[in-house]
Amino acid sequence: MTLIATPQSQHFSEALPLQSGAALRDYALSFETYGTLNAERSNAVLICHALNASHHVAGVYAGQDKSEGWWDNMIGPGKPVDTNRFFVIGVNNLGSCFGSTGPMHPNPDAADGRVYGADFPVVTVEDWVNAQARLLDTLGIQTLAAVMGGSLGGMQALSWTLQYPDRVRHAVVVASAPNLTAENIAFNEVARRAIVTDPDFHGGHYYAHGTVPKRGLRIARMIGHITYLSDDVMNEKFGRQLKDAVLGKDPYHYTTQDVEFQIESYLRYQGDKFAEYFDANTYLLITRALDYFDPALAFGGDLSQALARARCKFLLVSFSTDWRFSPKRSREMVKALLDNRRDVSYAEIDAPHGHDAFLLDDPRYMGVVSSYFDSISRSLEATA
Amino acid sequence: MTLIATPQSQHFSEALPLQSGAALRDYALSFETYGTLNAERSNAVLICHALNASHHVAGVYAGQDKSEGWWDNMIGPGKPVDTNRFFVIGVNNLGSCFGSTGPMHPNPDAADGRVYGADFPVVTVEDWVNAQARLLDTLGIQTLAAVMGGSLGGMQALSWTLQYPDRVRHAVVVASAPNLTAENIAFNEVARRAIVTDPDFHGGHYYAHGTVPKRGLRIARMIGHITYLSDDVMNEKFGRQLKDAVLGKDPYHYTTQDVEFQIESYLRYQGDKFAEYFDANTYLLITRALDYFDPALAFGGDLSQALARARCKFLLVSFSTDWRFSPKRSREMVKALLDNRRDVSYAEIDAPHGHDAFLLDDPRYMGVVSSYFDSISRSLEATA
Repeated sequence: MTLIATPQSQHFSEALPLQSGAALRDYALSFETYGTLNAERSNAVLICHALNASHHVAGVYAGQDKSEGWWDNMIGPGKPVDTNRFFVIGVNNLGSCFGSTGPMHPNPDAADGRVYGADFPVVTVEDWVNAQARLLDTLGIQTLAAVMGGSLGGMQALSWTLQYPDRVRHAVVVASAPNLTAENIAFNEVARRAIVTDPDFHGGHYYAHGTVPKRGLRIARMIGHITYLSDDVMNEKFGRQLKDAVLGKDPYHYTTQDVEFQIESYLRYQGDKFAEYFDANTYLLITRALDYFDPALAFGGDLSQALARARCKFLLVSFSTDWRFSPKRSREMVKALLDNRRDVSYAEIDAPHGHDAFLLDDPRYMGVVSSYFDSISRSLEATA
Repeated sequence: MTLIATPQSQHFSEALPLQSGAALRDYALSFETYGTLNAERSNAVLICHALNASHHVAGVYAGQDKSEGWWDNMIGPGKPVDTNRFFVIGVNNLGSCFGSTGPMHPNPDAADGRVYGADFPVVTVEDWVNAQARLLDTLGIQTLAAVMGGSLGGMQALSWTLQYPDRVRHAVVVASAPNLTAENIAFNEVARRAIVTDPDFHGGHYYAHGTVPKRGLRIARMIGHITYLSDDVMNEKFGRQLKDAVLGKDPYHYTTQDVEFQIESYLRYQGDKFAEYFDANTYLLITRALDYFDPALAFGGDLSQALARARCKFLLVSFSTDWRFSPKRSREMVKALLDNRRDVSYAEIDAPHGHDAFLLDDPRYMGVVSSYFDSISRSLEATA
């Protein structure tokens, strides 16, 4: 049975106060829902997305067989997050380029009606969670059965448990971290510099110039891809394979500017593809939201104190070869939650795929999530 | 006692055949020597440099107190490689921008006398070693007491033992690898793309345009710096420190384009500094030499077979947190050498500094190298 997804949009006229002190007025959120909200309104699951994703979490669009949602292997009828039992909501975050109000939309404060561009306010994980909570209000959902996300999406799930502790029963935090390390911030910064110093960026107002800082976006994406994969899986998939080996004794072309190795070809392709559809200002905003997230900051770096507000139950999952959001970072969260005597399940999956593993099929990973949602489902039935 | 270094240059009129099939004619190598060649001409030590270094290995230039050579902590009077006992040679590689013939020099094949630029032939580790061997010929040195290098310099040291097995008694290979992994090549490729797609690059002939692709060079260097450091040392040195915390409750400035974290400031500074002095074509050439090096390639990937030609004794050193040239890669070389019953010493130093460790002072590292050169020195005395 194919799950058909239908994107929706919700407009908000009341201004959203942002963590920076600015406010966003007259904005819209794109979202999708799958499954049916039960009579008790108790089976809602919110899915939070990471850098390069959207509200299109599961299913396909009518007549577009190849348009699977980004977490379609995880969410759908009979899947680990079973839409026959749960009412699943995917929502696109503010600042995105996939539907919700972002830098490509008209700035209501600009007299000439021009788009926000670089003037789009800096948004944080906390701001996104506040916006998501307002969306739930409009859907008549007071309490989530679960909030779930991977990577940056996991940060949102964690933040939900701190900002709205009474509105979440379970949080599923996959391949995430309580904040970025210096190395993570460093990779983000290099990507941002590549974009900002691209002459086609024009200080972020490239739309008015009819340009797109594609050079910068390509570099940003190439860097990203390296950090999403593990060294092992890169060696296994590409190794030192040549794109077009010269027949005979010496296989090299001796070129510095052309592709010689398969890994170069792969990265260039990924960069080119990304630069065609992703917005540069969105890239800056989303990477900055990643950098800024740090719930322990207001507690002098004490994560246990920071997580004391959480009330729900947790499932955390990490992947052994993920060096971007390593198991060590998940263990920090597990420890801080246990310090607060919270109910925490934790699975460290031995997978070769690096950070990307959270989007891939792994029977143990799928099994852990499936069991966890089974138990949520049973507790809902018991309550009903 | 201060070691005063004096750069020298040796011109070669006989063309150097390159691995690519091209040849380099009418070229010069910059070099420096420290200490005294003994009567038997048996105490020469050749130092090979890595990406961002030169023939200026040790000592300072007269009247320039701050001009220490890049391995001055390792090489000099009374240091691990003791110039009171050894005649040490530092040589700048072909294609460099620090003195030896490179892309910034006039192309003898160009009718208009313009500089090589992107037309400088692709050079390999093997080509560099051949050029170094010719320099030794002019110095009257048939056999090296030792050849030594770190990182890309270690690849040259290893290649010496394969190309000129009878001219090397010892090879000291530090923080190196028998070839690059896919991830290493990937980082090099992103850096090269940043340079090549900088509009100021002009296909590599930017000199004629009076431009320098500084944007690309900055990005390249920022990426490099991330990979030279370990995650641990980055967290220790920078962590999530803010450059200029806002007084009061919320320390953030909420900016996507300005510096917020210290690590960003550090990387931008390193990028800016590098773009002022390093040549973009040199960057392409040197990273490509790294990519191409793979002595096992001609043996179907069998490193043991590839290293069977080596005759000398070896010291290999790696550093526990070096993820660019990890201990695993050094162990591959150790195994391949032991498969051939070569005399190998191996030290795996538990150091927090990542790949950079090979340039830093660590008492165990210095001690291992010092002991190794002591024993070389004693064997020279015994032979004399």
